[in-house]
Amino acid sequence: MAFVFSTPVRFADVDHAGIVYYPRFFHYFHLAFEELFRVRMGARAYVELLDVERVGFPAVHAEADYRAPLRFGDQADIALSVAKLGGSSITFRYRVSRGEVECAVGTEVCAVVDLNEFRPCPIPTSVRALIADLLES
Amino acid sequence: MAFVFSTPVRFADVDHAGIVYYPRFFHYFHLAFEELFRVRMGARAYVELLDVERVGFPAVHAEADYRAPLRFGDQADIALSVAKLGGSSITFRYRVSRGEVECAVGTEVCAVVDLNEFRPCPIPTSVRALIADLLES
Amino acid sequence: MAFVFSTPVRFADVDHAGIVYYPRFFHYFHLAFEELFRVRMGARAYVELLDVERVGFPAVHAEADYRAPLRFGDQADIALSVAKLGGSSITFRYRVSRGEVECAVGTEVCAVVDLNEFRPCPIPTSVRALIADLLES
Amino acid sequence: MAFVFSTPVRFADVDHAGIVYYPRFFHYFHLAFEELFRVRMGARAYVELLDVERVGFPAVHAEADYRAPLRFGDQADIALSVAKLGGSSITFRYRVSRGEVECAVGTEVCAVVDLNEFRPCPIPTSVRALIADLLES
Repeated sequence: MAFVFSTPVRFADVDHAGIVYYPRFFHYFHLAFEELFRVRMGARAYVELLDVERVGFPAVHAEADYRAPLRFGDQADIALSVAKLGGSSITFRYRVSRGEVECAVGTEVCAVVDLNEFRPCPIPTSVRALIADLLES
Repeated sequence: MAFVFSTPVRFADVDHAGIVYYPRFFHYFHLAFEELFRVRMGARAYVELLDVERVGFPAVHAEADYRAPLRFGDQADIALSVAKLGGSSITFRYRVSRGEVECAVGTEVCAVVDLNEFRPCPIPTSVRALIADLLES
Repeated sequence: MAFVFSTPVRFADVDHAGIVYYPRFFHYFHLAFEELFRVRMGARAYVELLDVERVGFPAVHAEADYRAPLRFGDQADIALSVAKLGGSSITFRYRVSRGEVECAVGTEVCAVVDLNEFRPCPIPTSVRALIADLLES
Repeated sequence: MAFVFSTPVRFADVDHAGIVYYPRFFHYFHLAFEELFRVRMGARAYVELLDVERVGFPAVHAEADYRAPLRFGDQADIALSVAKLGGSSITFRYRVSRGEVECAVGTEVCAVVDLNEFRPCPIPTSVRALIADLLES
């Protein structure tokens, strides 16, 4: 199962070639990640995880394959799933599509880190629960 | 009456000081402008106005007063109204708030331009209808 | 006298209309502000003012008049001067031009703030020295 | 050999965690790409390749490994080399460092495309000459 966040392509998301600037897709991926927390756990859940519980999720690897362009006027549907759950890392999978057309697929590996010590730490129980149904079989 | 678009402050909307980067408020203003077209006229209304009807709305003046900061975890409510309707210009008013707190107020004047000739042109009837109820009394 | 920072318009600075997205000009203004500190006082001067001396410069007002568009391939020359020096506020003036063509002029008022107390504070001596020659007569 | 472009981390390049937002590294990669054209061929070389010669370089794959964070106050040195030169594709390699510290390494594959036909086309001679000395051995 995947969590899907949809957003219109914004007027300034495009570059001089008139298509969504390819680094922007990684921002789209992150929007879905932010919305996952917000929709399921509330507006302040992610910021409190960072600032109060002091657990962070720095990216250690990010990649994307681009298959079709997005333009202003399109809607981007961003699907997030979990490809792999490690002890202190999570591998997210993202698919950005415009209707039936797949525009980009991406993979991001983030570490789970104790922000006080800047060391790997176990994935918090709340985060395991948050993503449990998104794990690819 | 105002048209209101709400969005979470995004993880990367902030600057090194930890508050929403002040130029970003003008982007927030534009998000409300884009959503006005999208919600009331459909996803492709604005892009077709630009690309097919060849009418554009370049900003000629933009200003904002900043009253309170926004941070990651906050929701920004962006209210758009029309302060003045000229022959070939429109003055928009924007208010960005976080709950009851007013964070910024802005004014933007845009020209209405025939994009083929790069000359002022009358406000299209469809746009007059779009914003009729948003005119401040 | 003015401090001038020049930068190429970047591939993704433009919007769907193919011209620099107008909120981006406020970012250009800020680039000149950052460069003023960096060129004259060193790469870490501004960050140390914020993080060590705990003095900040939040914008309280920003405005711009747009006169000519900028496009990818253009160079933006951003001139910064000081229109007014108050007790605990500074009014900066910005002019963005492409060769002889003036593209935008802007004004920004920032407060000078003790970041520990979030209260207005006097302009630090180092900052007065930094901008002394930029004060408009 | 590599082409190196250096830029200060900008005030708004960071996210709520206070480090450069990881999608921003792909933008840094592109800055080096833009500068390669600009420094070696002139300010309008890339835009004319796109708009006049109608040859484009859409990304088909992009990836990055993140090794150390960048913060406001740091300088990012972005080194570009060419990992592979195909018939109608180019694989670029990027390394972003802060002094001696390697912060991120990336790889991007772009297609070379006739923008009128939206079909792969041979790498233009001017582009082959531009990157000849950057090919990794």
